[in-house]
Amino acid sequence: MRLALIGTGLIGGSAAWAMRNAGVFDAVTACDLSLINAQCAVKMGIADRATTSVAEALKDAGAVMVAVPVLAIPKVFAAMAEHLRPGVLITDVGSTRCSVIEGARRFLGPSFVDYAPVHPIAGGEMPGIEYADAGIFRDKKAISTPSEGMGEVARTFWEQAWASCGSRIERMSPEEHDEIFAAVSHLPHVLAYGLVDAMAKTANASKKFSLVGAGFKDFTRIAASSPSMWRDICLANREAILRSLALFEHEIKELHAMIERGDADAITEVFERASQARRTVGMRAPAVSKE
Amino acid sequence: MRLALIGTGLIGGSAAWAMRNAGVFDAVTACDLSLINAQCAVKMGIADRATTSVAEALKDAGAVMVAVPVLAIPKVFAAMAEHLRPGVLITDVGSTRCSVIEGARRFLGPSFVDYAPVHPIAGGEMPGIEYADAGIFRDKKAISTPSEGMGEVARTFWEQAWASCGSRIERMSPEEHDEIFAAVSHLPHVLAYGLVDAMAKTANASKKFSLVGAGFKDFTRIAASSPSMWRDICLANREAILRSLALFEHEIKELHAMIERGDADAITEVFERASQARRTVGMRAPAVSKE
Repeated sequence: MRLALIGTGLIGGSAAWAMRNAGVFDAVTACDLSLINAQCAVKMGIADRATTSVAEALKDAGAVMVAVPVLAIPKVFAAMAEHLRPGVLITDVGSTRCSVIEGARRFLGPSFVDYAPVHPIAGGEMPGIEYADAGIFRDKKAISTPSEGMGEVARTFWEQAWASCGSRIERMSPEEHDEIFAAVSHLPHVLAYGLVDAMAKTANASKKFSLVGAGFKDFTRIAASSPSMWRDICLANREAILRSLALFEHEIKELHAMIERGDADAITEVFERASQARRTVGMRAPAVSKE
Repeated sequence: MRLALIGTGLIGGSAAWAMRNAGVFDAVTACDLSLINAQCAVKMGIADRATTSVAEALKDAGAVMVAVPVLAIPKVFAAMAEHLRPGVLITDVGSTRCSVIEGARRFLGPSFVDYAPVHPIAGGEMPGIEYADAGIFRDKKAISTPSEGMGEVARTFWEQAWASCGSRIERMSPEEHDEIFAAVSHLPHVLAYGLVDAMAKTANASKKFSLVGAGFKDFTRIAASSPSMWRDICLANREAILRSLALFEHEIKELHAMIERGDADAITEVFERASQARRTVGMRAPAVSKE
C-alpha cells in the first residue's frame, strides 16, 4: 500500500520510515510545501516520490498521514477532501487533539469515518526531515484518541501501524489528552523557550552559554524544537496550557518568596517532594547498593 | 599522597576516584557524617579508610577536599583549622564561591594560603556516593576562582589535579562565577524542582508522570538532584539567583500574555530566538545534509 505523507518533518519522516521498514507500506509519496524537504525524504530512502501538491500526493495512496504543525492540519484536511476516495485510511500525528479532531469533523466530510488520530510520544532534539530516525518510537507510548463517528477499521489499522514501529498504544479521550499533555509536554516547552530567551537577552549571554553544564543542556534541549510546531500547539491548546502555566507561576512565586526570606525548611520541603516525585520517573539504578 | 575527602557524595566520591585513578593520590580517607556513606566509598574502591571524624581524616593527609553542601563548608573549615599542618593542600568543590571563600578566609587562618577552590561543572542525574563515576569530569569545565591571599602552589596543584581527571580549567572571579552559575545552573534547578512539585500537587499526578516523554524527562532530570545541596546553593547565592529568577518570571509573564491573546507573531519571535540560541549549545549534526 502507498502512504501519502503530508508534511515531511522529523516526526512524519521518522514515522513513514518506521512503518515502511515494518512492511505496513511498500511505497511512500512525500508531500511538503518545500520541495527540498520532500526530496530529502526521497534521498534518505523514506519516500520514492516527492511533490508539493496534496492532490498529486493522494494519487494511488491507500493511506494518508498528516504531519504538519497542528493549526495547519485542518487546512490540509480541507485541501484533501475533494481528492479522497472512500476507504482511504487517514491519520495525523499532531500533539493536540481537540481542535484537530474538530477540524477533521468539519472538513473530512464522509471520510471522517476513515480517520483515526494517534499522537506518538516521541521526538528528537533537532527538528527537520534531515534528523529523521526510524527508531525513535521504539518502546514509546502512542496515544489513540477515538471519538464519536470515527470507524473501527481506521482505528485498528493505525493503532497496529504504530505498534509495528515499537510504540505502546494507550487510549484516552481527546479532552483528557489535551489536559495531560499541556502539563507534561506543552508547558515544559514554553518554559524552556522562555528560559533560553531570557538568558539570550542578558549582556554576557555568549559567555553564559559557553559555560553551561549537562543540567542546563538537558533542561533546555527541547528549546531547540521547531518554533512553528510549538507556536501552533500553544494556540491550539491555549486554555489547558494557560491553566498549567498559572499553576507553575504560582509555585515559582512561592519559591521566590522562600528564597528571598531564606526559609531553608520550606525550600527543603519543596525540593524533597519534587526529587521524590521525579525519581519515580524512569531513573537509572545505582552501580552498587549503599548498605 | 593521602587525600582526606570530607563529604562522600556523588561529586566528592567521583573526584577522589578520578584523581586516585590518575595517580594524583595513592590513598584516600573518606570522611562523612554518615559512616555508611564513608564505608560505601571504601567498598567501591575509592577510599581505603572510613571515618566520621574530621581530625581522624586529616591524619597523614597531604591534601583535603571538602565536598559537602555549600552552607556546611565554612563549618568544616572551622572544624579542620586546628588539625591543619602548613602546606596541606586544601580545596572545595562547592557550586557557589563568594560565601564559601569568605568562610575560608575567616576560618582557615594561616592555611588560607594553601587553599584553592575549583568548581567542577559536572554531575549525575542521581545524588549519592553509590552513583559515583570517575568518568564524569572528562571534557567538562572546572572553574578555578583565585582570590587575594590564596597561594600559587595550591592553585597549581588543584588545577592540575582536575586537569588529570580530564577537566578543562577556566579561571574567573568568584563574583563572576556566582552571577553566571545563578543563571545557567542554579535557576534551572529551581525551575525543575518547581515544575515537578507543581505537577505532583495536581489531582491526576501519577497518570501524568506515567505519560511523560523524553522532553519532560530531560527537562526535569535535575529535579532528582540532592535537595540539601540545592537548598544550600539557593541560600548561599540568594541575591544572584533572585536576580535571574526575576528576569525569568518577567519573560514567562510576557509569554503568558502572548498565549492568552493568541499572538502568533510574538510567540514565534520568542521561540525562534530561543531555538537559534539553544542550537549554538552543543547539538548533534544531522544524519544527512538537506540540500
